[in-house]
Amino acid sequence: MKLYNYFRSSASFRVRIALELKGLAYDYVPVHLAKGEHRQPAYAALAADGLVPLLELADGTRLSQSMAIIEYLDETHPAPALLPADPVARARVRALAQTVACEIHPLNNLRVLKYLVGVLKVEDEAKNTWYRHWVRTGLEAFERQLAQGPSAPFCHGETPTLADCCLVPQIFNARRFDSPLDGLPLTMAVFEACMALPAFQKAQPSACPDAEA
Amino acid sequence: MKLYNYFRSSASFRVRIALELKGLAYDYVPVHLAKGEHRQPAYAALAADGLVPLLELADGTRLSQSMAIIEYLDETHPAPALLPADPVARARVRALAQTVACEIHPLNNLRVLKYLVGVLKVEDEAKNTWYRHWVRTGLEAFERQLAQGPSAPFCHGETPTLADCCLVPQIFNARRFDSPLDGLPLTMAVFEACMALPAFQKAQPSACPDAEA
Repeated sequence: MKLYNYFRSSASFRVRIALELKGLAYDYVPVHLAKGEHRQPAYAALAADGLVPLLELADGTRLSQSMAIIEYLDETHPAPALLPADPVARARVRALAQTVACEIHPLNNLRVLKYLVGVLKVEDEAKNTWYRHWVRTGLEAFERQLAQGPSAPFCHGETPTLADCCLVPQIFNARRFDSPLDGLPLTMAVFEACMALPAFQKAQPSACPDAEA
Repeated sequence: MKLYNYFRSSASFRVRIALELKGLAYDYVPVHLAKGEHRQPAYAALAADGLVPLLELADGTRLSQSMAIIEYLDETHPAPALLPADPVARARVRALAQTVACEIHPLNNLRVLKYLVGVLKVEDEAKNTWYRHWVRTGLEAFERQLAQGPSAPFCHGETPTLADCCLVPQIFNARRFDSPLDGLPLTMAVFEACMALPAFQKAQPSACPDAEA
């Protein structure tokens, strides 16, 4: 398998974690988002949505969208499971993942921040306030959701799931933008539990071949 | 089952379609987003994320996040299936759904538009341009994805899936904001095929008990 991705992309980071948790080897193909490599014709020919991550299977099939890729990996390589067996528990894990992937991250990714500054002429400080507002709103909702279920040491019990794959990159991202993370004890305890695992450490941005300072 | 939702909410509309496709009866509980009912203590006590839709099961369990809810419905009421059986096909359907739910809709929902106008003091015209920009960018990516697969009459072949549940509300939304939908022949043909089905008609905003002109 080949993973087209970018060290700093949260969505890429989610898939890297899942691949490490499953113990699956892959070729790392860097796509430099900040330099616009994803908008070059070579990448557009591969990725219909022009986004990272993109997982290319051995037969050339290409899969997009991080949560869809992780569910694919879980269906084709069931152990260790990244979703629980019970339908209600699965729904809870997916809802936690989607709280990050649908409520926080889409508002704060590079192309949105570029639009705010480039088109709407938003000042740097107001851009950062926007960023922190959506991170904070989303993580507070995440914390309340964790409080309702079996949320230790990971988002849903004893083993990491799709929800942990989504949470950890979002916390890395929040720290990059100096978003306050106080008052989120359950969320941050899950983050610490995840980062104690080699799979999360190996997948982190600073461990990527294309990492920059 | 009870569905807490709002006639105009795209995410609610997705779940209503799935319930109708499955032929599942439910109590419709309106939550008036524009009047801020979702921010009242009564609703906050029910919904950890304060969002609609929220599906309450017979035993009182509450599920959030539209895609998670639809996957739950599909796992617990398998016929008719809203995801194909093959893992690669499932990944394609989920990626199409997520193109709407992670790339378009989060940028254009009510609370984001309110932030643009209320906090960032963005003019009405610039707000509408923002809206149309993300709809257009996302739907063009959606169209390219459709072109790569078995996309007729529905997003993935002969029967509606999770992807159709997400696409149709986004098209309704785009029309409300006068977003141009030209040059998207595959996408719009899927939309028309969906809207020929009673399930999609019954779920549409104008057919809801809380519909407003």
